[in-house]
Amino acid sequence: MKYNIDKLFESVKEKGHVCVGLDTCIDYVPQTQRRFKGNEADAVLSFNKAVIDAVFDSAACFKVQIAYYEQMGTAGLNAYSETLKYIKSKGCLSIADIKRGDIADTALRYAKAHFSGDFEADFVTLNPYMGMDSVQPWVNEAVSSGKGAFVLMKTSNPGMNDFECLEIKDRNNEFVYDEVGKKMSSLARQYKGNYDYGMFGIVVGCPPSQENEAVKIRNNYPDLFFLIPGYGTQGGAAKDAAFLLREGNGGVVNASRSIINAWQLSNYSEDIKKNADNSFAASEARKAVIKMRDDILLAIST
Amino acid sequence: MKYNIDKLFESVKEKGHVCVGLDTCIDYVPQTQRRFKGNEADAVLSFNKAVIDAVFDSAACFKVQIAYYEQMGTAGLNAYSETLKYIKSKGCLSIADIKRGDIADTALRYAKAHFSGDFEADFVTLNPYMGMDSVQPWVNEAVSSGKGAFVLMKTSNPGMNDFECLEIKDRNNEFVYDEVGKKMSSLARQYKGNYDYGMFGIVVGCPPSQENEAVKIRNNYPDLFFLIPGYGTQGGAAKDAAFLLREGNGGVVNASRSIINAWQLSNYSEDIKKNADNSFAASEARKAVIKMRDDILLAIST
Repeated sequence: MKYNIDKLFESVKEKGHVCVGLDTCIDYVPQTQRRFKGNEADAVLSFNKAVIDAVFDSAACFKVQIAYYEQMGTAGLNAYSETLKYIKSKGCLSIADIKRGDIADTALRYAKAHFSGDFEADFVTLNPYMGMDSVQPWVNEAVSSGKGAFVLMKTSNPGMNDFECLEIKDRNNEFVYDEVGKKMSSLARQYKGNYDYGMFGIVVGCPPSQENEAVKIRNNYPDLFFLIPGYGTQGGAAKDAAFLLREGNGGVVNASRSIINAWQLSNYSEDIKKNADNSFAASEARKAVIKMRDDILLAIST
Repeated sequence: MKYNIDKLFESVKEKGHVCVGLDTCIDYVPQTQRRFKGNEADAVLSFNKAVIDAVFDSAACFKVQIAYYEQMGTAGLNAYSETLKYIKSKGCLSIADIKRGDIADTALRYAKAHFSGDFEADFVTLNPYMGMDSVQPWVNEAVSSGKGAFVLMKTSNPGMNDFECLEIKDRNNEFVYDEVGKKMSSLARQYKGNYDYGMFGIVVGCPPSQENEAVKIRNNYPDLFFLIPGYGTQGGAAKDAAFLLREGNGGVVNASRSIINAWQLSNYSEDIKKNADNSFAASEARKAVIKMRDDILLAIST
């Protein structure tokens, strides 16, 4: 059977490496579109649909950060659900950025919640702190459906040094995140897709100027597909991302604000911005996706 | 100002150490109550209300595990929201067991989502893997409201050995979880309540028969209030929990299934169970809470 990780590999091959982060808050929605809507959640959903329509043929997948929707309460989670369904209706892959991490029956409930029903997504993100028994229930639930997950390994925020990067005693220069990577590699060997990547991958941040480390991580885990945050607003550049890719594939690079808020970050006049609508914002998002896609492709080829 | 951690301390003093876990799945709801309801989420909410009514005067607080509600989709999250509101309406404290862990703006969104609005709770649980910058936004949001959080330190599942218990290089017998505890202690010294406990506490599991370790953890972190899972169904007993308490306070001990599903775990005939209603289940839950409360009080005093 074909795992979702295989579909993601094929999507990258066809459409490039960009993962569009729909971390949509109301501040990114043009003023004109906020006025005519009943509530914030509806306005966010309409905005998301416009962006998805504009970029789906140029993006490998979409990542939806649930925190932005939770903040809007039950109405927000309805918009979250509808956003995931809209991504699916366009034939695209979704990553639910939920970073769940719990065990036993609780983990199984989470897996059912996010691999089926109102909140069904193609992939989720997971937090490994409690151990592999917080990952295994998701594996069990994914085996029959082909769903996937990305487990946090090494992120790119300053706080990564607090726990992820603690060095382990009696090991040869190994850190906590290496232990996560090794356990995920071992899982990948059990559940390997058609393109030699495991059904579940890892999250590896894209900080600027750490070439040696990026190359080492990529070489250590050839059978793990990477979800790579940290591009754009968070400081990562195309060349940093390129070090984390493998033979032109093996990872998707997420950007959120620099895409969905491109219209406000642009040099247009305040007057134009004030009168912007969703289709203006969406066409700016499309330009940002295509530029990012091409920048990464260029960085790989040089 | 009074932090929620102060209110929790006072609640323990008045009502004992039991934290009732509302990890309610439809299988715990009596058959007779499922038939007359429009959907599972409504049946779960009615069941929760019956249990809360029966135990609120004997429990220190309630912990609501969001995974069980997420599994029921948007209707489930409505039941989650209503459960939290009902706990509040009884003058009781709620812990939202959400184990969130994310950074920067995303963490702030989560904090707003769970410290206000539809999903407002008195405390949340957090996962520290990404570092203290995944905790700090919650602190910032909590300072004005007095809200609290319990950060995962050392859990009681087998997988805790995978990452939490890795020994740190060049330290004197210190593990990853110790580093979490130390950083949380340092935070506690900045934000200390009226009873010398920090505004934010930690989650410390209650595994059977590890007395030395429990005593060591309790002594190492005198200024941290503990949320203690693992009692009852997961194998922990009153004497294990007692080692994690301090001068008769300093922690709440969570039990879920052994309380809310006590009616099915009981020795009543199948016929009685088949015809049971919510008030029967709730009165069995009350007995279980009182027994657990008294067992812990006895273990402390001996």
